[in-house]
Amino acid sequence: MTLILGIDPGSRITGYGVVRDTGKGCEYVASGCIRTGGGELHARLQAVYRGISEVIRLYGPVTMGIEQVFMARNADSALKLGQARGAAIVAAAECGLEVAEYTATQVKQAIAGTGGADKQQVQMMVMHLLKLIQKPQIDASDALAIALCHAHHRQSLIPHGLASAKRRGGRLRL
Amino acid sequence: MTLILGIDPGSRITGYGVVRDTGKGCEYVASGCIRTGGGELHARLQAVYRGISEVIRLYGPVTMGIEQVFMARNADSALKLGQARGAAIVAAAECGLEVAEYTATQVKQAIAGTGGADKQQVQMMVMHLLKLIQKPQIDASDALAIALCHAHHRQSLIPHGLASAKRRGGRLRL
Repeated sequence: MTLILGIDPGSRITGYGVVRDTGKGCEYVASGCIRTGGGELHARLQAVYRGISEVIRLYGPVTMGIEQVFMARNADSALKLGQARGAAIVAAAECGLEVAEYTATQVKQAIAGTGGADKQQVQMMVMHLLKLIQKPQIDASDALAIALCHAHHRQSLIPHGLASAKRRGGRLRL
Repeated sequence: MTLILGIDPGSRITGYGVVRDTGKGCEYVASGCIRTGGGELHARLQAVYRGISEVIRLYGPVTMGIEQVFMARNADSALKLGQARGAAIVAAAECGLEVAEYTATQVKQAIAGTGGADKQQVQMMVMHLLKLIQKPQIDASDALAIALCHAHHRQSLIPHGLASAKRRGGRLRL
């Protein structure tokens, strides 16, 4: 049983999701959004840092997944996104969590079985895999998708998990 | 007497500089570089966070200046720079420091009296203002320039300081 955190940082909203990897699949634990508000830069970044630290303190995940950014829209938005990512990653590292990065394609592949899945398909699969009745907010859903992807890749590092994943064509085990 | 920290974050090297504002001018306290090494992203960001926290713990500055980034070279470098800035700003905020941002033009104006000064001119003026015999490493020198700019702008918020600064044509008091 491993508790896994996924985060989706943004300059205004940082989504988070926590899942429990039972070894036979993943169960939903918690998800939500940290809203940074309209204050000064250092206060907004501190909100991300403290929010992630608080989520870790509350639920006790031991490892974190985050999406790798390949093509930011432009330099200005990349800088803002980078600042939020820096604050969030440092929070996890200071709490002693491992941090792993995954590309958007890896996340889609793990959740929906294809790197070409759209946001809606990923969200529907997150709901299905975690047996959610209500649709999570989109940033929280993206964070849960990353947590599930991280669980999947961690499993595939274990010989038994790897064999199991291969049998199922590399898709996430239910 | 106020201790002021200036930082110049980068994805590989983060410069820092600490000056003492005596009310009649600024004195050199310390400067240096935090090198993040070639490890994993979270370890590099943690090095920035811990490095800045340690500088604050060692010298006890109460306020920090940082350069505002307007035009990053490209989205990829902006993201990396943003991550380092996020880690550094959160360290300062968590240590209870005020954080103020200044444009490159404001820094040059405060140090050299003209927003058009080049890097070498700024470095020479930093050495002159702080009575340094040896040339500091360029990132440390940039950080000291930001600390001096921050000292200058803080002084100008005090009525007496403002009048004094105006008499001197807006340049930094020696």
